[in-house]
Amino acid sequence: MGRLARRIIRDGLLVTQDPSRRVLRGDLVLEDERIAEVGGHAKGDADETIDAHGGLVLPGLINAHTHVAMTLLRGAVDDLRLEDFLERTFAIDAVRGPADVRIGAELGCVELLLSGTTSFVDLYYFEDEIAQAAEATGARGFLAWVVLDEALTTQKGSPLRNCEAFIRSHRRRPRIHPLVGLMGVYVCSKETVLAAKELGEQYQLPVHLHLAETRKEIYDHERKTGQRPVEWLDQLGFFRAGDFAAHGAWLTLGEVRTLARAGVGIAHCPVSNLKLASGGVAPVPELLAEGAPVGLGTDGASTNNGLDMFAEMKAAALLHKGARWDATVLPAQQALDLATIGGARLIGMEAQLGSLEVGKLADVVVLRPDSPRLVPTTPENAVANLVYAAQGGDVRTVFVDGRAVVRDGAPTQAKLGDLLRRSAEAAHDLLRRAG
Amino acid sequence: MGRLARRIIRDGLLVTQDPSRRVLRGDLVLEDERIAEVGGHAKGDADETIDAHGGLVLPGLINAHTHVAMTLLRGAVDDLRLEDFLERTFAIDAVRGPADVRIGAELGCVELLLSGTTSFVDLYYFEDEIAQAAEATGARGFLAWVVLDEALTTQKGSPLRNCEAFIRSHRRRPRIHPLVGLMGVYVCSKETVLAAKELGEQYQLPVHLHLAETRKEIYDHERKTGQRPVEWLDQLGFFRAGDFAAHGAWLTLGEVRTLARAGVGIAHCPVSNLKLASGGVAPVPELLAEGAPVGLGTDGASTNNGLDMFAEMKAAALLHKGARWDATVLPAQQALDLATIGGARLIGMEAQLGSLEVGKLADVVVLRPDSPRLVPTTPENAVANLVYAAQGGDVRTVFVDGRAVVRDGAPTQAKLGDLLRRSAEAAHDLLRRAG
Repeated sequence: MGRLARRIIRDGLLVTQDPSRRVLRGDLVLEDERIAEVGGHAKGDADETIDAHGGLVLPGLINAHTHVAMTLLRGAVDDLRLEDFLERTFAIDAVRGPADVRIGAELGCVELLLSGTTSFVDLYYFEDEIAQAAEATGARGFLAWVVLDEALTTQKGSPLRNCEAFIRSHRRRPRIHPLVGLMGVYVCSKETVLAAKELGEQYQLPVHLHLAETRKEIYDHERKTGQRPVEWLDQLGFFRAGDFAAHGAWLTLGEVRTLARAGVGIAHCPVSNLKLASGGVAPVPELLAEGAPVGLGTDGASTNNGLDMFAEMKAAALLHKGARWDATVLPAQQALDLATIGGARLIGMEAQLGSLEVGKLADVVVLRPDSPRLVPTTPENAVANLVYAAQGGDVRTVFVDGRAVVRDGAPTQAKLGDLLRRSAEAAHDLLRRAG
Repeated sequence: MGRLARRIIRDGLLVTQDPSRRVLRGDLVLEDERIAEVGGHAKGDADETIDAHGGLVLPGLINAHTHVAMTLLRGAVDDLRLEDFLERTFAIDAVRGPADVRIGAELGCVELLLSGTTSFVDLYYFEDEIAQAAEATGARGFLAWVVLDEALTTQKGSPLRNCEAFIRSHRRRPRIHPLVGLMGVYVCSKETVLAAKELGEQYQLPVHLHLAETRKEIYDHERKTGQRPVEWLDQLGFFRAGDFAAHGAWLTLGEVRTLARAGVGIAHCPVSNLKLASGGVAPVPELLAEGAPVGLGTDGASTNNGLDMFAEMKAAALLHKGARWDATVLPAQQALDLATIGGARLIGMEAQLGSLEVGKLADVVVLRPDSPRLVPTTPENAVANLVYAAQGGDVRTVFVDGRAVVRDGAPTQAKLGDLLRRSAEAAHDLLRRAG
């Protein structure tokens, strides 16, 4: 091994998200794929120096629930009742092939990186294609191949075996973390649910699932089984510490305690829940109070319609204040926690990701110093500015594993013009095929 | 008079907001300060040609309620109970001088223009300073000098006479439209309210006021007068057609009808209402059904904390869907209407602003063609993309009165680096003085 590659990000305002939530002026030093120094004035040579003077520097954001390939459906299924939304989405699903997933995922990964998200959790099929997109663009993917009843899927073959095959082929790749995916209780029998759990046990991987998203899910399941979904899964012995679910918009306080006791977390998706009019609001303050891991996710581009975690942090804070009639609920620091260290804990990577601390992986975002919407920025209002004022478009430079994947607001690993042109063509073609 | 200056914006996707809400591929021709052709392929010479290929082109957005000078307070008063928020804000108010207002307003105007807003309604004092900032940066200002009881103001002299002096000195300036401002029933006696009304009648100008923003406002006024604010103002004979109020978060259906009958409109401010946990949601569908004019406003940067009308459109659509448990409420087209033609009607400028139609003033926004979050864009999803996916940072070129005030995402009438540095210093100094 040769000398370490050493990069210095000079003179930024470092929102560390360390245990004391310090905001420091100074330098951030990256050595190979790790953070080597935080704050102060770095001495010694560097292979590269990035001038961050006046700009905010933060840990790469973690999108804890999305479907990146759905970017191709942006703007195709808006303002619809859930039944109409699902009918149209399934019609498109039925004609989608691996090439559609690949190009949509590449567009989604570039959108994520350009807006400061370095890690994403994806729940979908053809996750091998999505892994390729993540590897091509430089994003860090936590990829859950979705399992559901064979009778109800558009997947070729057995979803469970597809998931296992994906895990076996992808579990040793850098920046790719296979997970077990589960669609949700509405399309999963007891046998399917338990098989997914066993797969997770066998490979020591968490299960990521949709849970308690809509009233319909709760009431249908209660009618069918006499139990609410969380109760039913709990009695099946499904939950294992480390598992995490998206949404949780319709959780009772008893269910919050069940999840917290089991060590199961929630990826809160406020924009998607609002846009689909789910009605419920995930009880984030109660989940946090009970010690459950909580992250934040954009969901897919057909229900958001962007993948911008800055916008999602703001939406989370606003939704809870509005719903509780209390402006002190979900303050800026807590919203930022959800998108960084909270998300890292949710995906079992708290020791590696989610903060700017020595020894952690160098997933780092540098914002533009010249964005009017971030003026004034001081150590005192830095966190509020990140949550309430910043936008994805303010991102200038992004590192994943110490490698620059975005420079000057442009992806380094993708030809943007070509990607956008191919994506637009693929979307047009997909919608044409779906009729 | 010489030949008209002729500009052609080539080959964009024109979201016209005309009466048929057409989305057209083609060219937009500006002649001097007016729109001369919409759609098709423009022939003839041009003094300038702007390539908009693949990009969305839309009418300049109208921010129907803000306080641009408050950008200096960004991030200074977040996550606080209303009482704590007001106490801190008033402490800062007490030490603020005209120079603070001027620099804050200039920063605010640049933030507005860079995010595609060409017209703004401002309710504040020192509106002469704000007029200078608007003129310096090229924004179109509807400026309401705020009137309230003399005993309760930090203004020097009589607020009413200050307002009148501002109207007299500024009513003939291009792109500056003085209005009569009224703070709200909580700081305005019957005499003050009626004097503001008379001032509006005398100069044939609308009154712009805060109304029905918080529960406290409603209940305090009921306790004091036996009437809710709208009822009280109505019985005083205050309302005149053309007046418009910000917020309206706590309106009954009867009050909606009172306002609509009087021809009084509402500037809906969803982000501010959520962030301050006002609890109520302005009954926008009911206001529209009753025929009241409705626009959209960001409110000030201390309660938002940005001035981005793209984000505000999305927030409006999400808030209503979430609050009503109905995903079809406030669809994308309606949200865009609020920010364009609806806002134009609200401010009495429907014949001049709010759509891309021949003869209207050339306030035009061109978005970047290369933003991943806007791919795919087609005539079918253009409106959904503007509301649910676009961000202020996607704006590339902005015209006001046919003059380019933003080019390549940078202001043409302000030195950005110098402005940001002076703004940061002024904010620091202001907060230091406020203690």
